[in-house]
Order: sequence, then C-alpha cells, then structure tokens
Amino acid sequence: MEGSLKPMDAEQLREYGHRMVDFIADYYKSIESFPVLSQVKPGYLAELLPESAPNDPECLQDVFDDILQKIIPGITHWQSPDYFAYFPSNSSTAGFLGEMLSAGFNIVGFSWVTSPAATELEVIVLDWLAKMLKLPNQFLSTGPSGKGGGVIQGTASEAILVVLLAARDKILRKVGKKSLEKLVVYASDQTHSALQKACQIAGIFPENLRVLKTDLTSNYALSLEVVSEAISSDLSAGLIPFFICATVGTTSSAAVDPISELGKIAKAFNMWFHIDAAYAGSACICPEYRHYIDGVEGADSFGMNAHKWFLTNFDCSVLWVQDRSDLIQSLSTNPEYLKNKASLFFPSVVAPRTFSLVCFRLIPPPNDQDNGYKLNHSLLDAVNSSGKIFLSHTVLSGNFILRFAVGAPLTEDRHIKTAWQVLQEQATTLLKDY
Amino acid sequence: MEGSLKPMDAEQLREYGHRMVDFIADYYKSIESFPVLSQVKPGYLAELLPESAPNDPECLQDVFDDILQKIIPGITHWQSPDYFAYFPSNSSTAGFLGEMLSAGFNIVGFSWVTSPAATELEVIVLDWLAKMLKLPNQFLSTGPSGKGGGVIQGTASEAILVVLLAARDKILRKVGKKSLEKLVVYASDQTHSALQKACQIAGIFPENLRVLKTDLTSNYALSLEVVSEAISSDLSAGLIPFFICATVGTTSSAAVDPISELGKIAKAFNMWFHIDAAYAGSACICPEYRHYIDGVEGADSFGMNAHKWFLTNFDCSVLWVQDRSDLIQSLSTNPEYLKNKASLFFPSVVAPRTFSLVCFRLIPPPNDQDNGYKLNHSLLDAVNSSGKIFLSHTVLSGNFILRFAVGAPLTEDRHIKTAWQVLQEQATTLLKDY
Repeated sequence: MEGSLKPMDAEQLREYGHRMVDFIADYYKSIESFPVLSQVKPGYLAELLPESAPNDPECLQDVFDDILQKIIPGITHWQSPDYFAYFPSNSSTAGFLGEMLSAGFNIVGFSWVTSPAATELEVIVLDWLAKMLKLPNQFLSTGPSGKGGGVIQGTASEAILVVLLAARDKILRKVGKKSLEKLVVYASDQTHSALQKACQIAGIFPENLRVLKTDLTSNYALSLEVVSEAISSDLSAGLIPFFICATVGTTSSAAVDPISELGKIAKAFNMWFHIDAAYAGSACICPEYRHYIDGVEGADSFGMNAHKWFLTNFDCSVLWVQDRSDLIQSLSTNPEYLKNKASLFFPSVVAPRTFSLVCFRLIPPPNDQDNGYKLNHSLLDAVNSSGKIFLSHTVLSGNFILRFAVGAPLTEDRHIKTAWQVLQEQATTLLKDY
Repeated sequence: MEGSLKPMDAEQLREYGHRMVDFIADYYKSIESFPVLSQVKPGYLAELLPESAPNDPECLQDVFDDILQKIIPGITHWQSPDYFAYFPSNSSTAGFLGEMLSAGFNIVGFSWVTSPAATELEVIVLDWLAKMLKLPNQFLSTGPSGKGGGVIQGTASEAILVVLLAARDKILRKVGKKSLEKLVVYASDQTHSALQKACQIAGIFPENLRVLKTDLTSNYALSLEVVSEAISSDLSAGLIPFFICATVGTTSSAAVDPISELGKIAKAFNMWFHIDAAYAGSACICPEYRHYIDGVEGADSFGMNAHKWFLTNFDCSVLWVQDRSDLIQSLSTNPEYLKNKASLFFPSVVAPRTFSLVCFRLIPPPNDQDNGYKLNHSLLDAVNSSGKIFLSHTVLSGNFILRFAVGAPLTEDRHIKTAWQVLQEQATTLLKDY
C-alpha cells in the first residue's frame, strides 16, 4: 500500500474500501464477459507470481491490475448467470454487506462474552429461520423442552460430522466405548460423500457404513425395505445400528428420501436420525414445497445450507437439533482461560514475558485465605466492567493470573499507559475494602 | 432494501457498498468511544428483536440504526486499542480488502476446477510464508521430497484435529484398527484445550491423553524427563504412544516447549510430532525470534494463526506438513460428482425434476459400446471448454449424466435459452464425428 504502514487507519480504510467496492461492482457489471469455467491449465499461477513474497508493498492500482490479469483468469465464476454446475451458491447485495460488516468488526465469537451479539443473534435468527421452515417447536431454542436450537456450521459436511459424533458418543455412553467397532451407519448410495468422511473421522469401521443401493424405480430415493432388511441383518450379526442419514435433494439428482417412514424406523431401533437438506431446504420455506420435509419431527437433527439457495454468502450452513446437550457433551471442553464473569496493587509478573503477553497478579496481603485468588478475580471483574480495557485470565500453579496481551494494530503507547492507570485505580479501590 | 428485489444488481451493490464502507470507517474512527468489553446482560438481544423474521424489507439507513442501537452494544471490540484479552486477532486495511474481494467473488473452492486461482494461490502463498519463517524445505510444496506443503484451516483447533486424525490413521494402518483403545497422546497441561477436543472427536480414549504437569521451574514448558517417563511407562503397559503436541507460545502464559528435544523423542518412538505456534508463530518471522522454532525440522506438522498476529482477518490458520499424503489418506473421499476434466443430441431427462436441478443425457446411437458414457463425457467437456456455460455431472445407474442446476440470482430466461443452444451446437458437432 502507498505510504507508511497504517494497518488499520480509518481514513485509509475508507479510501481503499470505496475503491474496492467499485472494483467489485465493475466485476459484476462485466461478469458475463469472462469464460464462466476457468480455462487455465494446472500450475498457471506459479508462472505468474514470484517465488517469494515481495519485500516492498504495491500500490492499490497495481493490486487491482494483478487481480485482473493473474487471478480472474483462474476464477470459475459461481455468481455468473451462465453457471449451472453443482448447486447454486448465491450471493446477494444483502449477503455481501453482511460479510463486509462482519469483516469490519472482525470479532471472534468463541464464547458469549467475546461478543454477546454474535451468540445471541445466531440463536435468534436460527429460530426465525426454523419458523419460516415450519420446523416443529422442539427444534427452537424457545421450544417447550428448552433443549433444542440451531447453530451455524461451515458446511453441511461439518453439520453431518458434529451430529454423527454426538450420536456416536451417546450410544457409546450406553454400550461402552469399546463397542465402537460394532456401530453401523445407514444411508443411500446417493448420500453426499460427507457422510463417508464423517465416518472416517469418527472412527466408524468402513465396513459398517451401509451404502444402500437406489435406482430409477424409486427415483433414487432410499427404499424402506432395503433399510429395514439391512438393520435386521446387522442386529442378527450382533452389530449396533445407531445412525440413519436421509437426504432431501441429493447431490446427483435432487432425490428425496422418505423421511417420515425413516424417522419411524429410527425411533423403533433407537437410532439417531439426521436429515441433510443442504440444497433443497431453502425451497421448503415455500408452502408448495414444505411437504418434502413432512416428518421432520421424527428427526434428531436437520440441516440446510443458507449459502446455497438462500442468498447468503458462503459459508453458512444451518443445523438444528432437538437436544443440544448431545452436541455439547460430545464437543465441549472447559479450560480456565475461557471461563468468564469468573472474574494488583503490587502486581508481580508470574511467568517470563517472551512475546507480547504479560502474565501478572496482584500480591495479596499476608495471610490472605486463598493467596489472592479471589482478590485477582475481583480485580479482573472490576477492570473489565469499567469498559475501558479488556483483559482475560488464566490459572497457573493454582494462582489466578491476569493476562495482558498487547498487539492490536491501533494500540499505541498511550493505551498501555491508560491501561496501567485503570489497573492501578481499580486495585487501589479493591485493597481499601480488603 | 428499498425497491424491488434485485439480489445481485451491480449498481445497487455499488451504492450500498459505498455506504457500508463509510459506516465501517466511521466505526473505526469512534471505536475508542465504546466500552471495549460489551456490558450487556445475557438475553439482552431477544428483548430488542421481533419473535419472527420481518416480512417486509427495511431501508439501509434503518439497518444501520439497528446495528448502532442493538448490535454494537453487544459487541466486544476486538480491534479496539484497549483490547488486551486472550490474544490479538488483528485486522488491517489489506486484510479487510481481501475479505471484501473474497466475498465479492463468492466462489467455493472445493476442488481445483471450481476456481483454480483459489487452490494455486493458497499453495503459493503458503510456500512464501514458509520461506519467511525459514521452515525447512520439506514443508514446501516445491520441496525436494515433493510431498510437503501448506494448507489453510479455520483455526489452530482444526489444524490439530486434522493432524491428529492423520496420525491416528497412520498408526492404525500399521497396528490394526482395533487398537484404537491403546493409542496415547502427550502434551503439557498448558496445551490448548483444542487437543482434548480433537482427542474426543478422534475417539482417543480419555484416559490415554497424558496431560503432563508443568510449573514455574520450567517456565511452564514441558519437561523432557516427564515426557520420557510417561512414554516408557505406557510402553511397559502395552500401550501405543503415537502423538506429541508441543506449543510455542501457550495460551495461558506464552510458554515455549523444548521442540528440538521433543522432536528427537518423537522420532525415537516413531510418533507424530505436531507444533502448535498459533500465537507466537508470526513473531518467529523476525530473525531475533526465529530461534524459538529451532528444531522444527523434527516436526511432522507445524501450525500458526495468521489471523492472530499477522494482520489477516479471522479466520486464517496455516498448517504445514512434511507429508501431505497422510492427510489425504485420512480425509479424502472421491465421489463421482467431484471428478472433473473427466467429461446430447437427443437428451433425455433421467431423473424427475423436483427442485431446480435437471439431470439429463444425450441418447447414444444404437449399439454404442458403452451406452453413451463417453459421448456424454465428451459433451460435458466440449460445453465447459467453450467457457460459455458451466455444468457438472454425476453417474446414475452406471450412466454418465449431465447436471444442469439453475438458481443464480443473475440468471434470466435468456441465459437458459443460450445454454440450450450451446448444448445443441456442441452435441451436433460431436455426433457428426461419432
């Protein structure tokens, strides 16, 4: 970029942001002029780029020229009106603006406190979408059981993986973890390969994935007879059927599995039933298509890709479950540095500073009951509640430790000095009452 | 949005995009005026939003007002100069522009053909970054072995998961898949909880994750004695040590494990050795910090988060491996609809059209050797090579089938008609020579 390094200067962001908006709008104006499928040969780009990262910055116009000459020839234009491959992956002006805003905030929402709006908006909007799909109440976070709800995944493949893991651990808690080799999964030969990958990751034995044959007589939908026979035969062999995956709108031919009946079979044998409506789910919002997911109340989990056919940028795959505790049991850990509202002044540095992280605590008065654990906890709470600075914490050798991580592009000396003042003030106040 | 639905109109995108740029630039100008840690109480947002999705659109100014009044109070401002929690998650103007461009193209790069630039740029830039870090050549895609290379993951947690899966499957191929219960993983009690989660997902028995104690005497780094003793003891008990995870810059205190020596131990016992430098990896680009990853040549895999301290928007976690075939064996599937450069004119619709996907094939001349498999393959190649339209394919009941998926926001009737013409022309040409 031109001039000195200003990694996140508001006015430079404004100027360059405007130029990028024009570049992208111009791209959409001319999108039909490009070959929709990239015509380059493998390895084309290595011939156009240097072998090492350039040492000096380029001006933005040179970056645009590079994109036009070197990158766009290697793009397959998913947003082109001449794109009829795979499934649509639709963007929209609203979707694009949402991506911009999200990139602008650049928050990391790994827990509620790291940005409450992120967690709460996800829950609320997924309830909205569930209502649009007329999903039964038990899939809502506000449903009668209080146990359901939706969560955004990257892709439908990720959704299948997390529910398969939840189902695996649920059955293993019952039959013992050494029975992994007996667990059997059922789906049709039209099911997305994501299921096979999920089985590989979860350690399901490859010979225990039943890829049941379909043909034109059932329009490539799973046959109930075939499923029932497979389950019976596996039960006789001492195996444990535990997961059925149905698809509404298969990848190959948009076939629809008989979900009402599959739900009944799953229930009869106490199996997890997942419905993958990655592509066709969006259509089922329309009353005339809703009947394709009749029977969804029999499913433990239901997923669709908003990024396919719902005008939302890639990636936004939506997953609802009837009982989120299964997912939480399977996928949660609870480390100290992620606990919060959990909650110096003789601070002591408690671990050597190697990079940009300073670990310290307030030394407690002599004979303090818990050697300053509560005291430092209170200090963290007080400092963070001020809204002036935000620190996190950890526990080292049983002591409650404050973590001061420096490194935001906008941070200057004065912010560090202010932070030090805030810490001093809050610590002084605390120690007065101690 | 105002006016009629134009999901991806270039001029509306331009107008609204400019307004969003100004909104974001103004946010950065005023970022210090907000409490850096959100001060809302759990459940705050449900009180501010309707119970169902609104039926009518809002004008953009109302959307901005909602963001200011309802969303920003629930944001914890990761880009604020007063943010010292967890680790930095830095954005920059360059990072933001990259996100905008990526959102503008909105491509899905799941295979080379779906946008060659995406795959090739990732490989090239990760080689650049590996050179900046002075990683040994065997981590480069252009290295002497031809087996190494880098790949972008969402988070360091995902990176740990994929290498753990690769390591698990590699050892199980040797000792048999029923030995899962004997596999043992080693790390310190300062290792990120991602390792515990990865073990849960991979089915490693919880009692076989060795969380080895550290303390201030080693500055919270893993002790070699403790590791060696644990391995010996597990071997005597008939268990199978297979994975060591070291950290350069732990989450709690930025501690650095002794990676040279751990690499030697891993090699001696034929274990996979992963280095998680999620936070501190960026610093190791600087010559004065590079010594912290001395010994990286003994690692099978090495990861760092560009989104933490390298001015790249969340999420961009970078993972290098010495042998990518381990990852590929563990995580790949090879379904028909993803094969490409793989390859009507009496087209027949071969599966009922339920949603927006039409499946068809060209009926071959009588006595065609493979019932039109090659013919339809050639048609797909010819059509896609024209650059005018892009279709994909599948195989149903042994027949090669073309998939025509309609649904891009910019697609109008005329694009479908043109597509039909292109198909007719290419099919006619093909059948002439048949």
